[in-house]
Amino acid sequence: MTPAASPRFEIGARDGAARSGRVFTPHGVLETPAFFPVATFGAVRGLSPDELTRVGVQGVLANTYHLHLRPGEELIAAHGGLHGFVGWSGPMLTDSGGFQVFSLDAFCRRSEAGVEFKSPLDGRAVFLSPESAVEIQEKLGADLIVVLDEFEEIAPGAAPDLARTRASLERTLRWAERGRGVQRRGDQLLFGIVQGGGSVELRAESAARTAALGFGAFAIGGLGVGESPDERARLIAAALESLPPAAPRYLMGLGLPEDLVAAVARGVDLFDCVVPTRHGRHGSVFTSRGRLNLRNARHRDERIPLDADCVCPVCARWTRAYLRHLLNAGDALAARLLSLHNLAYYMRLLRDAREAIATSSFAAFAARWRARYAEEGFADSSSRRAVTSPA
Amino acid sequence: MTPAASPRFEIGARDGAARSGRVFTPHGVLETPAFFPVATFGAVRGLSPDELTRVGVQGVLANTYHLHLRPGEELIAAHGGLHGFVGWSGPMLTDSGGFQVFSLDAFCRRSEAGVEFKSPLDGRAVFLSPESAVEIQEKLGADLIVVLDEFEEIAPGAAPDLARTRASLERTLRWAERGRGVQRRGDQLLFGIVQGGGSVELRAESAARTAALGFGAFAIGGLGVGESPDERARLIAAALESLPPAAPRYLMGLGLPEDLVAAVARGVDLFDCVVPTRHGRHGSVFTSRGRLNLRNARHRDERIPLDADCVCPVCARWTRAYLRHLLNAGDALAARLLSLHNLAYYMRLLRDAREAIATSSFAAFAARWRARYAEEGFADSSSRRAVTSPA
Repeated sequence: MTPAASPRFEIGARDGAARSGRVFTPHGVLETPAFFPVATFGAVRGLSPDELTRVGVQGVLANTYHLHLRPGEELIAAHGGLHGFVGWSGPMLTDSGGFQVFSLDAFCRRSEAGVEFKSPLDGRAVFLSPESAVEIQEKLGADLIVVLDEFEEIAPGAAPDLARTRASLERTLRWAERGRGVQRRGDQLLFGIVQGGGSVELRAESAARTAALGFGAFAIGGLGVGESPDERARLIAAALESLPPAAPRYLMGLGLPEDLVAAVARGVDLFDCVVPTRHGRHGSVFTSRGRLNLRNARHRDERIPLDADCVCPVCARWTRAYLRHLLNAGDALAARLLSLHNLAYYMRLLRDAREAIATSSFAAFAARWRARYAEEGFADSSSRRAVTSPA
Repeated sequence: MTPAASPRFEIGARDGAARSGRVFTPHGVLETPAFFPVATFGAVRGLSPDELTRVGVQGVLANTYHLHLRPGEELIAAHGGLHGFVGWSGPMLTDSGGFQVFSLDAFCRRSEAGVEFKSPLDGRAVFLSPESAVEIQEKLGADLIVVLDEFEEIAPGAAPDLARTRASLERTLRWAERGRGVQRRGDQLLFGIVQGGGSVELRAESAARTAALGFGAFAIGGLGVGESPDERARLIAAALESLPPAAPRYLMGLGLPEDLVAAVARGVDLFDCVVPTRHGRHGSVFTSRGRLNLRNARHRDERIPLDADCVCPVCARWTRAYLRHLLNAGDALAARLLSLHNLAYYMRLLRDAREAIATSSFAAFAARWRARYAEEGFADSSSRRAVTSPA
């Protein structure tokens, strides 16, 4: 057996700063811009791989933090890695575990060596280093993996603490180099991570210096955690402008449809977020005319699909009235079907974006999409990054 | 449009007291003996109609009690009935609601007119009569429906309270006649219900007198609620012997695989029970060599299917180790996949039973099945009927 080559990225079309392309992985081709739903424990909460594929999902993100704690990477490696364990045959991505450590354990102990935290499962101390984060991900065996970074909260409205942010940036760079140094497998694409907190200057510097380390792919971390949409736009733009244009760019943990459309316009290639599935579980439904809350009494008797423009398996078969009934009754099928519809919505949005880029009509597409999406009048300013906690 | 004819039953083969046959309904042919999973609120908890069909489920039972309280039969009728509402195109059965009233509201007020109970949703008083039970079920539109009966708990180990049991039996007969009197639709098969509590004599009398009322189909109610397996066998036998052999017999709310095999041997044609799905949600898995508890630590590293002899979509793809991991992590996919596997197990058991009857080899099949099923050594004496409560 010849070893699989490292995933490689090809840009197919450019439209302004936006671009569409392909990532060739050992588990198939990924058309970009792409969105990965979150498979916290290996599964996308209640959904089967087959139905994800049916609505157009190309790849999923699994959480290293959760899988390291339970069942552990050794059991997963014994299954031939995550693909064999969870039964997903397409591209997979794992994060480093760092974001969960910093978000879920406020008392974790950071040091140059790494970070020690308390396992929420049994209270034992667990140590994660830049090296072990890569080693664990090599055992998990996803196609796309990321280095451990030090996460710095952005205080909303306040001026960035530049000294602290710079310290995190420097540490993240040292950790990136250490993580890269222990990479043994040649078939996984390792992403460096741009940090820099709420500072446009530090974002640009972090991007340039991470690129100088020689990474072939770049993630932008630490966003969706307190900054305003305008700040976020500036921070993303600063990072992107300092990254090599030929490498894939992954915006971690974001977001709402409007976040995706804005970031694609600026040249982001890959996204992951819990939003479509978590919102679905709670009855919040994405439609071509905006988001609706299915628990609202006005949907009680509606014998119409969630979204009249949607061709997903949920909209083809069930009415809002039935899905609302199941949601109120607490039947797990409601969470499942609403998650599936929301994913179908996201997948169509990204597919439309790819086609618009290919025909050099992305700006017109985005304007049309925004106008339509605003029709129902659901304003939503909350796009804070959601932690994929087990709760 | 010509109105659909009433479902009719044809016996295809007999083997001792066991028989296989077909019920022709407006929504397709039902091969008997058959087992219906319980779709409490219209869905079989977390499972989609497509996947039920894929593992061989022919029909489902929905609970009139729950659907009457929420969302109400009018909304369902506006969807063209349950089939249109829940998206199930095969045969459907509804119960009368009585069993849930008597089981879930210990303070319900029984009278000759019917039973008044408190809605657990909003505390309001709701009245269910023999007439309204049929009228609600006509609006729900299942293919097979049942009359309202008065349920009498069987006190374990105690001699039956004959006066009280007889009073319930007489009332159930009067209610059966009243329910039948208001039936308007010609396309629904209405089942009379045999009661008689823990008395063999009263079971026989109830069966004979229900038959004399002219019903074309018979349910056996009030079992699996306290009697021992031996008592249950005698009570079922007494009822069956006094029922017209050409009519279909439905054993309500039971049970475990051993209950099904025993009852098929005596000539039961139809079953419903929450056991396969409820057990699945809690990690209890049916296999050809007995039942196993997937939460048990000995399954932690098992890279084998739930049941090596099973060809269901779950066993084809995932290991015990992965499913146990999902179960421990609380991912809804675990409950879904274990329920689906258990249903596949039940469907194969019933299909094997039908084939054995057709080849006059049911006794040998049952003996072989029992020996194999005992291999893992899981004794299980608990087959109390489980109330389909929303909990």
